[in-house]
Amino acid sequence: MTELLIKADSATYPVRIGTGLLASIAQQTGGNASRVFVVTSPEIDRLWGDAARASFNQPVVTLHVPAGEQHKRFATLERLCEELAEHGADRDTLLIALGGGVLGDLVGFLAAVYMRGIRFVQVPTTLLAQVDSSVGGKTGLNLRAGKNLAGSFHHPIAVFADIDTLATLPARELRSGLQESVKAGVIRDAELFAYMEANADEIIAGDPAMLAHVIEASVRIKAQVVEADERESGLRMILNFGHTIGHAIEAATHYNGLLHGEAIGWGMIAAVQLAVARGALAQEDASRIMRLIHACTDLPAFNATAQQLVVLTDSDKKKRSGTLSFVLPTGIGTVQVVRDVTETELLAAAEAMLQTMRQRTAVTA
Amino acid sequence: MTELLIKADSATYPVRIGTGLLASIAQQTGGNASRVFVVTSPEIDRLWGDAARASFNQPVVTLHVPAGEQHKRFATLERLCEELAEHGADRDTLLIALGGGVLGDLVGFLAAVYMRGIRFVQVPTTLLAQVDSSVGGKTGLNLRAGKNLAGSFHHPIAVFADIDTLATLPARELRSGLQESVKAGVIRDAELFAYMEANADEIIAGDPAMLAHVIEASVRIKAQVVEADERESGLRMILNFGHTIGHAIEAATHYNGLLHGEAIGWGMIAAVQLAVARGALAQEDASRIMRLIHACTDLPAFNATAQQLVVLTDSDKKKRSGTLSFVLPTGIGTVQVVRDVTETELLAAAEAMLQTMRQRTAVTA
Repeated sequence: MTELLIKADSATYPVRIGTGLLASIAQQTGGNASRVFVVTSPEIDRLWGDAARASFNQPVVTLHVPAGEQHKRFATLERLCEELAEHGADRDTLLIALGGGVLGDLVGFLAAVYMRGIRFVQVPTTLLAQVDSSVGGKTGLNLRAGKNLAGSFHHPIAVFADIDTLATLPARELRSGLQESVKAGVIRDAELFAYMEANADEIIAGDPAMLAHVIEASVRIKAQVVEADERESGLRMILNFGHTIGHAIEAATHYNGLLHGEAIGWGMIAAVQLAVARGALAQEDASRIMRLIHACTDLPAFNATAQQLVVLTDSDKKKRSGTLSFVLPTGIGTVQVVRDVTETELLAAAEAMLQTMRQRTAVTA
Repeated sequence: MTELLIKADSATYPVRIGTGLLASIAQQTGGNASRVFVVTSPEIDRLWGDAARASFNQPVVTLHVPAGEQHKRFATLERLCEELAEHGADRDTLLIALGGGVLGDLVGFLAAVYMRGIRFVQVPTTLLAQVDSSVGGKTGLNLRAGKNLAGSFHHPIAVFADIDTLATLPARELRSGLQESVKAGVIRDAELFAYMEANADEIIAGDPAMLAHVIEASVRIKAQVVEADERESGLRMILNFGHTIGHAIEAATHYNGLLHGEAIGWGMIAAVQLAVARGALAQEDASRIMRLIHACTDLPAFNATAQQLVVLTDSDKKKRSGTLSFVLPTGIGTVQVVRDVTETELLAAAEAMLQTMRQRTAVTA
């Protein structure tokens, strides 16, 4: 078991990474909770609910949220608030968010707003959530107008990234989640990148020790960035590498068909090609990045034109007053945030990415 | 014009108190806003909307929320989030909350969660909101299970308490709002208390200079308490003087019939009687407090039994793990927070308060 400490402005808390961690949740966090609630999906409850509840001496109430992005809405949040109140939740209540990133975002927001803030624990059960969304304090839900447009910053009191839970994760989700680790490597950790290059097959096959190493290195990067810039005014923006076009792809495909990590994989490919076209990134490094992306994840094809994607980047909520910030890789482990990317460059990059997609589809067909 | 500076852990901001302040909102706050929205009720918009918008050089979008506690719900919040998104609100957007306490709580929460937090300005147009709810950073909305059970701490960047707006406030609302100033005097400011005793008639008649003095002194008390204890773990609890039973009265009357300040007036009377019964407060001080409460506000009678009220204090969200905290006045300007108030004491205090109510009703009938 490894423990990393996240030191953000507003909170300090441990991320524990390893196997068999669910057995120690109460011991690590539950000492002074008046009431304990596990919030999870029926599917995850069946697989991991008993393990998550087992360590508590006191009764644990379980609230269910169906899996799926469509439930990350105000209606679900309100229903959960009412259920907490019905079960007598007060300010000393502890929530356990047991599930993937969607569940974690929702339960984090629930903890942020119920009685103006109660404590919660993240128990991410997907690789994506373990390496990315469970760390950093971002919580949120979706509007009709876009994803994560409402939310808050509210840190968990602890994160338990239990490798055991990845054994019940579909292979496609595991592989998709690896893209956030590729991202971590590209933006700030050449060693992690090289480790993933060297061990891609074993990692994909679910080797627990190697997964633990990848998760730990990824969380470390995220922690460094979040510590330096909790509210995303500057440095934190580098975590958006691949996300500008990635989010556009998700919007173009109506959050259907591609997993988040798969969309980010394509988004990173577009960003890499934009960087090469600008002369910011050597072709050799670009090829390494693209090879690792493809080695980790069999990126599915999707239907969208370059023009559509560029239009959709405009609605990216990360733009500030009309200027699009864009994260350009400048090598393996280094990136640069620029604000002068033109629509023409975006179009060309999206076109190059679609070209890559067509070539790969032709090969695999 | 007086300016008080609120220095909370997470923010420092001015509360401006005086006349003609709406003309300077833009100048004081709007310099770097990408977009500006006024959120208000149709009624307040008709009276003060133009004045609130006039100082801005840029277009100001106005969003309407019907007046009334029943709109302080997640459904309204979500609708406002969607409207902000439709009008292109980004992270550099400024919201102006123009209205009373309900509107301010809702718009504050909207500002807290839209894109995980944008800036907002409080322009309270009721005395209650000017002396109390616009200062302190509490935002929130109601659940079926209770008032303000969801919300967050999010400070405005400035508060404009414009005395002019009180001229269009119904006399009953003005008088009801004075109870929060009586509270401020009892818990921490004997001078404010004496000032209100000496000038009650003129204050009730709406004398602008005297109102400004009362507002300033009340805000100063609230600011001191909030600065010392932003998140209500200790000292901030003294602001709940009169609120434990006051909230029970509001619940018993289904938030109908009594204004908030009126319920708090009755709640303070009960607390005073509990304090006297315990020997914590001299009868002479108790009589002064009760006289000032009645002098400020003609407290309406309501229907509830002492037993009902005691049961309803149990659902007060401020209880911590089963222990009810209660704020006892120990003199004019001093209070004590105790945690050992028994149900029997509460019952007797509620009974004494109802007795006072019956006597007054008999006199005025």
